[in-house]
Amino acid sequence: MRRDQRKTDRRRAGGQQGGAPTQAAWRQPRNPYRPQEIFSADQIEAIHAASLIVLQDIGINFLLPEACELWRRAGAAVEGDGPRVRFEAGLIESLIGSLPERFTLHARNAERHLELGGDAVAFSVVSSAPNVSDLERGRRPGNFADFCDLLRLAQALNVCHLIGGYPVEPIDLDPATRHLDAVAAMLRLSDKVVQGYALGRQRMADAIEMVRIARGLGDYELEQQPSLYTVVNANSPLQYDNLMLEGMMEMARHNQPVVVTPFTLAGAMAPVTLPGALVQQNAEALAGLAFTQVVRPGAPAVYGSFTSNVDMKSGAPAFGTPEYAMATIASGQLARRYKVPLRTSNATAANAPDAQAAYESQMSIWSSLLAGGHMLKHGLGWLEGGLCASFEKVVIDAEMLQMMSAFLEPPSIDSASLALEAMREVGPGGHYFGAAHTLERYDNAFYQPLLSDWRNFESWSEDGARDATQRAHGIWQMLLAEYVEPAMDPAVAEELEAFVARRKAEGGATA
Amino acid sequence: MRRDQRKTDRRRAGGQQGGAPTQAAWRQPRNPYRPQEIFSADQIEAIHAASLIVLQDIGINFLLPEACELWRRAGAAVEGDGPRVRFEAGLIESLIGSLPERFTLHARNAERHLELGGDAVAFSVVSSAPNVSDLERGRRPGNFADFCDLLRLAQALNVCHLIGGYPVEPIDLDPATRHLDAVAAMLRLSDKVVQGYALGRQRMADAIEMVRIARGLGDYELEQQPSLYTVVNANSPLQYDNLMLEGMMEMARHNQPVVVTPFTLAGAMAPVTLPGALVQQNAEALAGLAFTQVVRPGAPAVYGSFTSNVDMKSGAPAFGTPEYAMATIASGQLARRYKVPLRTSNATAANAPDAQAAYESQMSIWSSLLAGGHMLKHGLGWLEGGLCASFEKVVIDAEMLQMMSAFLEPPSIDSASLALEAMREVGPGGHYFGAAHTLERYDNAFYQPLLSDWRNFESWSEDGARDATQRAHGIWQMLLAEYVEPAMDPAVAEELEAFVARRKAEGGATA
Repeated sequence: MRRDQRKTDRRRAGGQQGGAPTQAAWRQPRNPYRPQEIFSADQIEAIHAASLIVLQDIGINFLLPEACELWRRAGAAVEGDGPRVRFEAGLIESLIGSLPERFTLHARNAERHLELGGDAVAFSVVSSAPNVSDLERGRRPGNFADFCDLLRLAQALNVCHLIGGYPVEPIDLDPATRHLDAVAAMLRLSDKVVQGYALGRQRMADAIEMVRIARGLGDYELEQQPSLYTVVNANSPLQYDNLMLEGMMEMARHNQPVVVTPFTLAGAMAPVTLPGALVQQNAEALAGLAFTQVVRPGAPAVYGSFTSNVDMKSGAPAFGTPEYAMATIASGQLARRYKVPLRTSNATAANAPDAQAAYESQMSIWSSLLAGGHMLKHGLGWLEGGLCASFEKVVIDAEMLQMMSAFLEPPSIDSASLALEAMREVGPGGHYFGAAHTLERYDNAFYQPLLSDWRNFESWSEDGARDATQRAHGIWQMLLAEYVEPAMDPAVAEELEAFVARRKAEGGATA
Repeated sequence: MRRDQRKTDRRRAGGQQGGAPTQAAWRQPRNPYRPQEIFSADQIEAIHAASLIVLQDIGINFLLPEACELWRRAGAAVEGDGPRVRFEAGLIESLIGSLPERFTLHARNAERHLELGGDAVAFSVVSSAPNVSDLERGRRPGNFADFCDLLRLAQALNVCHLIGGYPVEPIDLDPATRHLDAVAAMLRLSDKVVQGYALGRQRMADAIEMVRIARGLGDYELEQQPSLYTVVNANSPLQYDNLMLEGMMEMARHNQPVVVTPFTLAGAMAPVTLPGALVQQNAEALAGLAFTQVVRPGAPAVYGSFTSNVDMKSGAPAFGTPEYAMATIASGQLARRYKVPLRTSNATAANAPDAQAAYESQMSIWSSLLAGGHMLKHGLGWLEGGLCASFEKVVIDAEMLQMMSAFLEPPSIDSASLALEAMREVGPGGHYFGAAHTLERYDNAFYQPLLSDWRNFESWSEDGARDATQRAHGIWQMLLAEYVEPAMDPAVAEELEAFVARRKAEGGATA
């Protein structure tokens, strides 16, 4: 099997020596560590209580009349014909109570199924970037060729567990049928769990149907086996728009998970104070999560955290900042309070895959880990606050996420690992290079890097003195060169093609 | 005053817009968060117990006969005339029990005094690098001019709380008198706490005397006020050499703190397993810490963590790896067990101030934070596993440490910060740019970067598309240009000069 070969190859040639890229085997990480807390339990209750006041007194605009009608029947106070809906605390708490604490996301390859919730962690590739860049060709608008190459990288990299939405927007595809070609490509080029877009009922329904076909399931089976996810952003502040609500309803009706993510930039679409922005995020998240339960009690959903701040001088969004890290960790406290899985992001505002991109992403990744985050969106490739997908950043992120995965596996402590015999053998002033204890563990003792170069300055200089970004360029090219499309049952492939052809003939998304 | 001016200037011109560098005001951070735990309490006890077995059965070589004699009198089992010393568990635990849990490090400027221990955190500039580099002039051997410029940066950057040893080795100075010129320069160019080197009794005594003069104290007062520190590395495995022991004794006799740091690279100077390396680190640290108490009960000392691993393919040391992060956090658990402050490091093996340098340093800084680390050595400027001090890395690290300091200050939660009134004012679909709640907090709402550029791609491109490393180059040059030497009492300066002149006439370090 491909993955086993990789594992065997690990010792043969490390990425840093210019051979085939080294990477760890596929597995879903488990986070064994206690989550961090930014706020005390009382402070979290204060945020919770304030968000219930927002929901009761100010309310949320649900711009879709059908959603308002559902809310009216569920017992919420709809103002006139809407769109303003207000909610009693008891209603929200009762609806939130029916959300599952954890669930399985099913891929078309059963080895790629993922747990969502508990101690399980999953990393997703970048999605929805309007631009794409690499060191050689520079920055350009999103297009289908780059879309496919980024999907191939997402498939090739074992540390990428989830396909996000479109890694870049393929703007060279007809908008009416783009989702058909795009979802077909996602399902063909990867066998990992995919995301569909909540851009109206029709596009969402098409994505659900295509995933059903790819998995070879009937409608009922699909409902029993969540197999794709979508992200719904509140149109912050305090508003959900038509297209997102249609998509959310379509997903919940099919029992497929919705990741409800308020887009709360403190100082712009949310209050300038971090606690205030969290109150708004929480009110929006609770309203959206509760709505999934109005549509279908027990449907899976995820609490999305995306609170950051703008630069007050320029209005530009900032990511991976201290405020962003604190908001992420606080969101973990809130999500645990509601017993709902947490979505986080690997975010940076950097314009290049440079040191800033690395340290802002690290701030994001560490805070996700400390938050007890379950689904890390934009895990590989995000730049420019989401306006660009970078091929080199994919590799830099892969290394950082592999390191984090290894960090999540603390060693066992037993008499062999405590190594008293080895210390007796070597004694004061000796060294361990030739000790039996060392030789027995030589192969897999330590984390093996994909990108990091640990050679000394002289060796590194003689080999071209390439910095991490330049090396990343070579690594993604090698990964693409050795990419193999995952097998798909020809009957399934045919059925998918036929579906796409039929829906194209019908005009695609006509709404 | 200079620092107040800085604070006022913050809004005027951010580093990212090309004006004067923005930085946060001087303050010593406090870590309000619960430390992380890699190992269970039972596992930590197993490491502790194993290290006591090492101390009792294998023992430690103390290469200085005088040290063996002190150990003999203290009740340890010295083999023959030494150097092997073995220790009963009770002796070690009793000596460790007399170490202070926290203490104050005094600077020549009282505003720069630092707490060490408890929730206080302090960051130090790089030390002991044999080489130095910057983008323009490349890599070169350490020299006194770069030594002075790096000290000026350490003084100028408010997030640098401690001067380490020599930021680069000034190899153009005569080794016999180098320490005199170097310590004099440290005391003249900075008013922060400095480090002296434990390179034999004479050099250590000279450093202590110079700091005493700079602080204007008598001998007894100096003993009451720890005013410099030194780092003593075990000559791992399980060995302390003459020069280090002489320095350690000189420091402890004067009640000045010793940072006892085993240099335990798993797979080379320590067992290949992380638990084994930690057992050895802990045995060496306990022996060193206990020795300070043999010399002077109650003398301050610090538990140093420096366990990492080598690349088993090349033997090259690796830093900022998953193993390094786990070892650091486990060291925090051990240091807390013994109620001794913890020293950590900001380490990377990268050969350039690039994305690898940033993410390995982030791994180091986050693990230090999660370990509850008190003194972060090599906080600013370290590259190549310590073989090079980089001017650009100083700025990249300053940004990362400033961000961490801000992360250590979670916001207060009260009715103003919860912002319900602002949400009522803005309502669904609005924005907060013009809200009174926003305008009142416009100036200091969020972290202000020193290096990060949050402008959009177009503005960034028009301004030269400079990556973080290139921008860092401009920032350290500006910081040097605006550096002002801190005032020193002319009488003190004269006394220092006279001391240096006298000791040079005597031949400097003759041992």
